[in-house]
Amino acid sequence: MVVEIIPVLKLPTITDGDNISDLVCKAAEKQGTPIQNNDIIVVTHVVVSRAEGSVVNLNSVKPSDFAKSIAAKSEKDPALVEVVLQQAESIVRMRKGCLITLTKHGLICANSGVDKSNVPGDRTVALLPNDPDDSAKRIREGIQRHAGKVVSVIVSDTHGRPLRDGEINVAIGVSGLVPIRDRKGENDLFGYVLKAKRTAIADELASAAELVMGQADEAIPAAIIRGYPVQESDEATAKDMIRPLEQELFV
Amino acid sequence: MVVEIIPVLKLPTITDGDNISDLVCKAAEKQGTPIQNNDIIVVTHVVVSRAEGSVVNLNSVKPSDFAKSIAAKSEKDPALVEVVLQQAESIVRMRKGCLITLTKHGLICANSGVDKSNVPGDRTVALLPNDPDDSAKRIREGIQRHAGKVVSVIVSDTHGRPLRDGEINVAIGVSGLVPIRDRKGENDLFGYVLKAKRTAIADELASAAELVMGQADEAIPAAIIRGYPVQESDEATAKDMIRPLEQELFV
Repeated sequence: MVVEIIPVLKLPTITDGDNISDLVCKAAEKQGTPIQNNDIIVVTHVVVSRAEGSVVNLNSVKPSDFAKSIAAKSEKDPALVEVVLQQAESIVRMRKGCLITLTKHGLICANSGVDKSNVPGDRTVALLPNDPDDSAKRIREGIQRHAGKVVSVIVSDTHGRPLRDGEINVAIGVSGLVPIRDRKGENDLFGYVLKAKRTAIADELASAAELVMGQADEAIPAAIIRGYPVQESDEATAKDMIRPLEQELFV
Repeated sequence: MVVEIIPVLKLPTITDGDNISDLVCKAAEKQGTPIQNNDIIVVTHVVVSRAEGSVVNLNSVKPSDFAKSIAAKSEKDPALVEVVLQQAESIVRMRKGCLITLTKHGLICANSGVDKSNVPGDRTVALLPNDPDDSAKRIREGIQRHAGKVVSVIVSDTHGRPLRDGEINVAIGVSGLVPIRDRKGENDLFGYVLKAKRTAIADELASAAELVMGQADEAIPAAIIRGYPVQESDEATAKDMIRPLEQELFV
């Protein structure tokens, strides 16, 4: 019942058009930990975005007057603010230099998830993948093709959180696993039937993966989690973890 | 660099006055994974509360009129609501049957962290430990005494979150490790200097631990995380993860 978290080391720098599945399978094999059935592969969204070409050169962006006005208040690059606004459905909070938006994926996060780090070029930023669940699905299918193994895949991003300091890694795309384990009806240690307990397994797996992904000086964009029995599903998506806004107490 | 998450199995049912350090050391040894230097021991708060006697029999509680009025609206037990209010500094949200409070520990969580599950007796609830950092410290010192090993300890609780469905395990008490890794100033893959990146390591460790703690039918109240290089500290506390309310965008 021991769960192992294995970093996937020495991946080449991933660029537009690269096949993440093949690269992860090869790197895992080369380091002596080939992908096995039931492994969970966690990949950080930035390399997915790079492979899918979801990057923007800020030099090509013409900021609107609104973007310029926000940028002036928050000491941000107006072109960056423009990209953040273009990726947003709506603005949830805008204060103290923070721009928290509802993205077109339904996520609420800082700067619409637009990321400056781990992207080559001074003026290049990574957007979130266009459809992170679909990205996870394609990586999963690619691993099955390449290595013949049935795995599940999580595309992750680090998110800040209301009410807690520090960021944690969460799942923004999943394929092959149910992201929330509903323990309602299970018994506890003393036979008490749990009335409401929904564990965000996919987020906990993403956080576990970051223990090895964020550990080294060099960025490690992928990890293998081995030994955790997921509840398998071909249909479940990370959208199942987004609470409907009308149920939200904090917006 | 592989990180292992090892469940501590076959712990006896922990009750008032039990020595958690000794019991965890013995159980770990018995299952063939004795505690080692640099292990991180994660213990769920409910057993800590039970060992410390932080449990309340609801039959002994006389609910106030205010507690009765809230209980009537939310179909909750008036005595339970009374205990929740007694543990609260203030009420942050009260809607749709949810009671989100700021506890005397400075945490913002549902029902002041008062927990019905994994407590023996129909009418008994567990409070949060009186000082979870201090609990972690005593468990850590106990393990050093019992096994002669230098470890760090996390006392964990599962929390619901704004903006995301499902609960995750987080650190409410720590001893021996810095809970937030400040990566500001580190370089990314392409030499970009990270301007703001604070990773909530202690929460990610707690979430990783729950992958084995919440896995079985029987509750597993403790886990060993092996292979993760914490930033050591004798002074750091889980209070370092509580964002000051005046900086909070969502309250």
